[in-house]
Amino acid sequence: MSDNVKINRGLKGVYFERSGVSDIDGAAGKLSYRGYSIHDLATKSTFEEVSYLLIHGELPTPAELADYDAQLKAARVLPPQIHDIIAACKDGHPMDVLRTAVSALAALEPDSQQVGEQAFIENGIRLTSQVPMIIAAHEAIRNGRTPVAADPTLGHAANWLWMLKGEKPTESTARLADVDFILHAEHGANASSFAARVTVGTEANLHGAIVTALSTLAGPAHGGAAEDVMKMVHEIGSPDKAAAYVKTKRTAREAVTGFGHRVYRKEDPRARHMREGVRQLGEEMGAPEWYAILQAVVEAMSPYARHGLNVNVDFYSGVIYQLHGIPMDLYVPIFAIGRMPGWIIQCVEQQRGNILIRPLTLYNGPDMRDYVALEDR
Amino acid sequence: MSDNVKINRGLKGVYFERSGVSDIDGAAGKLSYRGYSIHDLATKSTFEEVSYLLIHGELPTPAELADYDAQLKAARVLPPQIHDIIAACKDGHPMDVLRTAVSALAALEPDSQQVGEQAFIENGIRLTSQVPMIIAAHEAIRNGRTPVAADPTLGHAANWLWMLKGEKPTESTARLADVDFILHAEHGANASSFAARVTVGTEANLHGAIVTALSTLAGPAHGGAAEDVMKMVHEIGSPDKAAAYVKTKRTAREAVTGFGHRVYRKEDPRARHMREGVRQLGEEMGAPEWYAILQAVVEAMSPYARHGLNVNVDFYSGVIYQLHGIPMDLYVPIFAIGRMPGWIIQCVEQQRGNILIRPLTLYNGPDMRDYVALEDR
Repeated sequence: MSDNVKINRGLKGVYFERSGVSDIDGAAGKLSYRGYSIHDLATKSTFEEVSYLLIHGELPTPAELADYDAQLKAARVLPPQIHDIIAACKDGHPMDVLRTAVSALAALEPDSQQVGEQAFIENGIRLTSQVPMIIAAHEAIRNGRTPVAADPTLGHAANWLWMLKGEKPTESTARLADVDFILHAEHGANASSFAARVTVGTEANLHGAIVTALSTLAGPAHGGAAEDVMKMVHEIGSPDKAAAYVKTKRTAREAVTGFGHRVYRKEDPRARHMREGVRQLGEEMGAPEWYAILQAVVEAMSPYARHGLNVNVDFYSGVIYQLHGIPMDLYVPIFAIGRMPGWIIQCVEQQRGNILIRPLTLYNGPDMRDYVALEDR
Repeated sequence: MSDNVKINRGLKGVYFERSGVSDIDGAAGKLSYRGYSIHDLATKSTFEEVSYLLIHGELPTPAELADYDAQLKAARVLPPQIHDIIAACKDGHPMDVLRTAVSALAALEPDSQQVGEQAFIENGIRLTSQVPMIIAAHEAIRNGRTPVAADPTLGHAANWLWMLKGEKPTESTARLADVDFILHAEHGANASSFAARVTVGTEANLHGAIVTALSTLAGPAHGGAAEDVMKMVHEIGSPDKAAAYVKTKRTAREAVTGFGHRVYRKEDPRARHMREGVRQLGEEMGAPEWYAILQAVVEAMSPYARHGLNVNVDFYSGVIYQLHGIPMDLYVPIFAIGRMPGWIIQCVEQQRGNILIRPLTLYNGPDMRDYVALEDR
């Protein structure tokens, strides 16, 4: 093969499809879903509404939203075998258990085998409700509790916290989770959504694609940043030690976690909403030191901002989860709850005029050679 | 965004990485693993040897092969929870059950959380042995039988057939399965291997990547061809009806299954070995009609060969499985058994100098618009 073939490592800058779902302007630090600024959605909307918007393309009318909400609530059911499967592997990482349960749903619910736009949307609604239930059921089972039933009076975020903790969340706690889900709901051809599209490209069903997305999100370079930031905050310990920590990292040419993003060159526009959440929650709970440490790290990193090293969305979310008393190994599963609508609509788009996604590798192995029998080696 | 951005639909013709594992010359219809012709490997080698070759880059010496074989045999163990999990979803499609069990292994076996070349190879060896065991256990459980234990006197292919059927295969039956696995072992950046690389690109572990590969292989446009060909053969019924069947399909501009491939313009070089297998097996078993129908379809399709519509590897494999009395829904799982070494080595390659695989979509949705409150819609 010719040596002047272009290798697009990481497919950086390569466009593989058009998409009408979200627009990311990485140079300007802007993000919109279906034409609506992420800032408007984070401050004025709800996860249910954003989910509808992403999947159907328009904000719902009150009647449409009520109907969509009813569908989501009706879908808060797990086949009984799912609890058995969770119990059988309860000591595993919650992402592995979640992925196993979603994969099992494909085997347990015959509707999951259907393909096409309508089937993807219906199966997507079911999974949107089931994913937080699975995570909450696992948390209960591994702690020796019986999973609680869903509460039909609660919205998506509040019901998730209810099922996770077995106690009703305050309004502000539920709203913070709601905003978190809105901010994570969709982000173009990120690795997990792209991998899901590769799976759909073979005409696989939605459950298979979501399983792929979960496997891909689980990688530390994708969904793992919130957990890594929390570990960093614990390591730093107090705001006055942040500058020295950053200096040591930069001198060793190591990355400071929570900074930089493949797409954004300015600050990730989602970060500000989580920052405000951390600040408020820390004050409310009498634990302002976490926010102070984070901001001290940001200050110490400011000289590198012009090189594109700005905070990303996951810089702040870990501290919120910590203040809510959520175990660190649930941070990535929480990301998955939020990302469901984005994965679903990316899969819906992919199956329209579907095409197999199959790039090429350039061979750089040995030249052709003769086989040598085992006894002659 | 500019309209003159190039969209690489399906990433057709896009190189994303170099790979030293297999070389596919689609124009010439040639395939080699690590410099060895697929024809030599299919006629002179074994799956164990090819697996070693793919993963380590060189054919093993007798001592290396004995050691590798001992590792594979020692890995023929499933945690007891896996049978419970299979039983909990036994009525599902075998690909969904297989994927669920592999996903659960990640939760049950702590070593699966390790990353890096050595960990990928060790976990890969374990999965290579466990995947056929899971498929066989599922087949036993769904038919009310107790799964049989692995037989350490048997090689990989023979042990698979033993565990599947509960009776020892003949030498020629085992050899045909062995050749099938060799032919399916590796094929560059095919959709499942590519998807697995996307998962590894986020620094995920091998089990996650194999789960992704299984989800992606399950799509009818990737692993499903053998099953579709078998359905076509049943529909045609006898050799004299093949020409009319092909004419009807071509007139309706519908694809004839088992013909054509994204990469090959000439006959898929793997096809000839399966063709010879079908012919011999049909004669041995007194059922030559399947081969006759297949060849009548090839004859009827010959005018389209110059357009690149040649038989691919899966055109013949389904009939072999049928003659072996294997249910149709196990055809894709069998493909997965064979493809394990290819998936493993593609993941090993990806994690060397790893990079996030994250392409772009070009936004074609609505322009920026103002948020309208729910009550005003």
